[in-house]
Amino acid sequence: MFELGIVKRNILRADRVAADALARYGSATVHEALGRVGLLQSYMRPIYPGGQVSGTAVTVLLQPGDNWMLHVAAEQIQPGDIVGAAVVSPCTDGYFGDLLATSFMARGARALVIDAGVRDVKALHEMRFPVWSKAISSKGTIKATLGSVNVPVVCAGMWVTPGDVIVADDDGVVVVPAARAAATAQAAAQREALEADKRARLASGVLGLDMYKMREPLALAGLRYVD
Amino acid sequence: MFELGIVKRNILRADRVAADALARYGSATVHEALGRVGLLQSYMRPIYPGGQVSGTAVTVLLQPGDNWMLHVAAEQIQPGDIVGAAVVSPCTDGYFGDLLATSFMARGARALVIDAGVRDVKALHEMRFPVWSKAISSKGTIKATLGSVNVPVVCAGMWVTPGDVIVADDDGVVVVPAARAAATAQAAAQREALEADKRARLASGVLGLDMYKMREPLALAGLRYVD
Amino acid sequence: MFELGIVKRNILRADRVAADALARYGSATVHEALGRVGLLQSYMRPIYPGGQVSGTAVTVLLQPGDNWMLHVAAEQIQPGDIVGAAVVSPCTDGYFGDLLATSFMARGARALVIDAGVRDVKALHEMRFPVWSKAISSKGTIKATLGSVNVPVVCAGMWVTPGDVIVADDDGVVVVPAARAAATAQAAAQREALEADKRARLASGVLGLDMYKMREPLALAGLRYVD
Amino acid sequence: MFELGIVKRNILRADRVAADALARYGSATVHEALGRVGLLQSYMRPIYPGGQVSGTAVTVLLQPGDNWMLHVAAEQIQPGDIVGAAVVSPCTDGYFGDLLATSFMARGARALVIDAGVRDVKALHEMRFPVWSKAISSKGTIKATLGSVNVPVVCAGMWVTPGDVIVADDDGVVVVPAARAAATAQAAAQREALEADKRARLASGVLGLDMYKMREPLALAGLRYVD
Amino acid sequence: MFELGIVKRNILRADRVAADALARYGSATVHEALGRVGLLQSYMRPIYPGGQVSGTAVTVLLQPGDNWMLHVAAEQIQPGDIVGAAVVSPCTDGYFGDLLATSFMARGARALVIDAGVRDVKALHEMRFPVWSKAISSKGTIKATLGSVNVPVVCAGMWVTPGDVIVADDDGVVVVPAARAAATAQAAAQREALEADKRARLASGVLGLDMYKMREPLALAGLRYVD
Amino acid sequence: MFELGIVKRNILRADRVAADALARYGSATVHEALGRVGLLQSYMRPIYPGGQVSGTAVTVLLQPGDNWMLHVAAEQIQPGDIVGAAVVSPCTDGYFGDLLATSFMARGARALVIDAGVRDVKALHEMRFPVWSKAISSKGTIKATLGSVNVPVVCAGMWVTPGDVIVADDDGVVVVPAARAAATAQAAAQREALEADKRARLASGVLGLDMYKMREPLALAGLRYVD
Repeated sequence: MFELGIVKRNILRADRVAADALARYGSATVHEALGRVGLLQSYMRPIYPGGQVSGTAVTVLLQPGDNWMLHVAAEQIQPGDIVGAAVVSPCTDGYFGDLLATSFMARGARALVIDAGVRDVKALHEMRFPVWSKAISSKGTIKATLGSVNVPVVCAGMWVTPGDVIVADDDGVVVVPAARAAATAQAAAQREALEADKRARLASGVLGLDMYKMREPLALAGLRYVD
Repeated sequence: MFELGIVKRNILRADRVAADALARYGSATVHEALGRVGLLQSYMRPIYPGGQVSGTAVTVLLQPGDNWMLHVAAEQIQPGDIVGAAVVSPCTDGYFGDLLATSFMARGARALVIDAGVRDVKALHEMRFPVWSKAISSKGTIKATLGSVNVPVVCAGMWVTPGDVIVADDDGVVVVPAARAAATAQAAAQREALEADKRARLASGVLGLDMYKMREPLALAGLRYVD
Repeated sequence: MFELGIVKRNILRADRVAADALARYGSATVHEALGRVGLLQSYMRPIYPGGQVSGTAVTVLLQPGDNWMLHVAAEQIQPGDIVGAAVVSPCTDGYFGDLLATSFMARGARALVIDAGVRDVKALHEMRFPVWSKAISSKGTIKATLGSVNVPVVCAGMWVTPGDVIVADDDGVVVVPAARAAATAQAAAQREALEADKRARLASGVLGLDMYKMREPLALAGLRYVD
Repeated sequence: MFELGIVKRNILRADRVAADALARYGSATVHEALGRVGLLQSYMRPIYPGGQVSGTAVTVLLQPGDNWMLHVAAEQIQPGDIVGAAVVSPCTDGYFGDLLATSFMARGARALVIDAGVRDVKALHEMRFPVWSKAISSKGTIKATLGSVNVPVVCAGMWVTPGDVIVADDDGVVVVPAARAAATAQAAAQREALEADKRARLASGVLGLDMYKMREPLALAGLRYVD
Repeated sequence: MFELGIVKRNILRADRVAADALARYGSATVHEALGRVGLLQSYMRPIYPGGQVSGTAVTVLLQPGDNWMLHVAAEQIQPGDIVGAAVVSPCTDGYFGDLLATSFMARGARALVIDAGVRDVKALHEMRFPVWSKAISSKGTIKATLGSVNVPVVCAGMWVTPGDVIVADDDGVVVVPAARAAATAQAAAQREALEADKRARLASGVLGLDMYKMREPLALAGLRYVD
Repeated sequence: MFELGIVKRNILRADRVAADALARYGSATVHEALGRVGLLQSYMRPIYPGGQVSGTAVTVLLQPGDNWMLHVAAEQIQPGDIVGAAVVSPCTDGYFGDLLATSFMARGARALVIDAGVRDVKALHEMRFPVWSKAISSKGTIKATLGSVNVPVVCAGMWVTPGDVIVADDDGVVVVPAARAAATAQAAAQREALEADKRARLASGVLGLDMYKMREPLALAGLRYVD
């Protein structure tokens, strides 16, 4: 359940080494390593391709058409954080632009993940401040109603607790609970190591059917080859 | 209310200097300068990133799956115009491709804003003819039923009167009434001047909370900081 | 009607020369040349711009959240094929990533067209393996339930028979029946030849109104010019 | 272009007899009688089936998540009016419930047409106050930012001028310009008279092919019958 | 692949007894009995609740905004048919109303399934002519461009061949290939017989966990009960 | 964060009296009484109108296309519960029909709220078992992959903890945290008492402008009346 009108200053951030390490594996591998949970809905898209980040979550709960709490959140950002923002009811307005990005970068933020719209996307691209959002819109917002900062939020269908690790790239956005960050990084590293070998074998023409030993289970399931 | 079967030849275009000046401020700043009205719905997206234009509107009202009126509109284009096209019921067909773009460019058009689909998008990108549309579709159109040219239309939720200024960039599309073009350009220039200073202060680490003097109104609204 | 649990090994591929030739005309011209049929829905988008391919269809029918049949399909791929994949009920999961792409490329596949999601899109771009999909999602899939390979499928609203030619570019995806591939290529070539001349005339300022002799039919339809 | 912060008190309502007469023909017939324009987008649906109304438009321009102007509008309602409400950016919140409906009914309003959400729909049904809306949502709204009353608005893609006639039923919502209300009612009456005869002939087994004399134009268009 | 401009007069209808029998089982049971294939997308909804029909398909391929072929189709209807209509590109216009319904009923049609919009829904309800559609819209259509009648079509994502059995109720629409109609009716009858017994046991408090013997496979899959 | 493969047997249900009392106020009033939070997205709709319930949440986390965990959940249901079901990635399949409803009713469940599809909706209506869902679909599901029962889930954008109170009616679905159930019921009762008086005054013709004392703040905000 959401709480409005609260800013929590002291949050328990995930282990820094693990939080930083997760970026290199990307959202797809981390999602697998975490046991196939933690994914935001696929309508969350990067405003420009190629960004790949991980960091600790500072969460924001916003009112529709109102970005007041993003200004409040800026003060809570520490280097290595990613801001994860949700809205209490659906909205596509442009909550965030180059001025807020300048402020977030000055505080050490690595990215913004927001279940709403943003604007100034050309400038954000030039500044290399990556954003994952639901929409792009020129429409700005007002500053009139309280939300919260650093309370648990639901962002694009996924629960985000302050301090969790957010991993985002061109494939999407995954949230890793702080307590599982180190184990997940380890599992992701193992997956990646295995994949290099598989990739080489597949490139040489070995079929997944044989490499993964799928022929027998497929036959058991009743697959018939016909001419 | 829409009228079908009409081409209006003499329209009152917005002041040329103001119409041309608005491009540099971009849609987000112009939307603010205009008092936060005039924005087309955010599903209108550029077919390639980086275009930023303004110009005077030649409007077109189209039938679903029928681009006849775009050919009629071409003759009404003057240098500095942007064609703003609406459809009487929703359609994603590709109304516009490289041949029409060649013709529009030969007439001096700067862009197309269309609440429907377009095609030949790779060629349009290579020609650097910017388009904002609802869809991209290979499906062409027929030429069978009348619409109108240079009547007021509703395009992506916004009223566009012939001669209005259309401003479009990666953030979206805004319509500025002809009579307010000069005042809006002035207001946009003022906003931009203020933003440069703000940007520098935010980059130096000043918080928006302090720069915008938000701490007192937040406290009055009841914001609580907890540890 | 779909059949589950079947892999058809011998399919009648379209004439290779025609199948290869269609790529250069692009989906919009091919769609016209085919008589304005054969187009997949416009929500099918390339994961990166600029790809333009044609090839013979190997079809796959998938279960929601299950990519088992893509592995089965890999073995049926021959050089020059494009895999066309449908799902029995709507799903946006990421069915396909860089490992499967490595395998598909090793078999000679030119592209994937899938009415579902894919992942590893940055890697796919770097590998230059083009994909047209409904979604991008980090979420992987399981391997538990049978679908089919090389049965007729409905992909994004269009019927695809194994061996048909698939043509895809930035404008969308078109399916050409195998038996009509050569005739369609010829018709597309004729269209393209005509367009070069038209383009030159339009660029010189000739209006489509005159070039296409539209003034009389427009007048007959009742178009009125007003001042 | 929209104006904010304005209430226009004296509006020119359409002829009362014509405005009242249009209800009986329903939205589909009126849309035809008006020349196939004036229709709101088809996502506008009645909250309960069976309502069929017409009336003169009192228009409201709302801010997202804010229903302040509906209270202002109540005072401008006269018996026989229908309130037509638009929002400056998309919102599905519940702007209207049984209390406002009580007030609107006390003023003589016949219906609400709103490009947003409403709530208390069971009570509204019991009160027999018909509403056409984009959404149903329990979420209430605040009262903080000005919009306008009785300015022209764009509602669900259609321009509504204060005093226009709104016609709504289970098929959708049509707007008839005040100046054309009488002529449209007459044209609708003629259409309806013709339809009674057609219905009887079709019920007797006469085919539309023959009644509308379509066989020759179909043959000319190239239709082939095959066995 | 679709063919335009063709009316096939002689189609092979499914066995009448089987086609008629399928209605009583409903779409969900028939979908299971058919092996979980054949379902149209779930956006196809009845215009009023409670209809439950089956019949042999007369198919129609329509152009966007053009219902000419529905008139052509009327002549091909035989008692016990259901018209299945697709459009070559997406459209929500109202293709069908009470006049066409009168004609269809006079020919013996049992229902319409259309991947587009319809209108006059109150009258259709009063006439008890059931329709499953994608949209409801007052907007009528023109009669200008050829489609086809009784060619295979893709309707809401599913292939429909003339003569197939269409089964529709409040849960959705399923297509049963003509050749499998009798076997499917038999399988559906068996399913239904089994369900009566299951229902009684579940109503008495027996758990599905026990009735379906799920406890062991769940334990094998690793399910853990915690307190 | 979600956990898979777990069934929690002992959950702390909200106070029974409060949980039962909330139904009568309905979702809109409860949403206000709770401080305007707790609302599921508005795409969650009742399968038939008129249901109005409250109860304690038994939560279920499902895999796409797989309803195994609903059978597991049945055993955890106690009289007065409402089952709240989420899926780990978007799915519209029909997870629930009359057999499961029979079992749920035998256990004392009052309703199902599911962020996916259901089927047998006519039977469910006849049984008077209310369901709020995202879709209706004939398509059944398999029983192959573990989810969880009675873990916290995100359902249609809202966090649901086992034991919370779910309130649902024609306006939508609201979740009340167990610890706040009694206070929310009290606040809702107060709101309702106030509304009766307001309703009477509005019905007598008093304007909300006066009853809520809005004229002064509107004037301060700059509202202008023009003639």
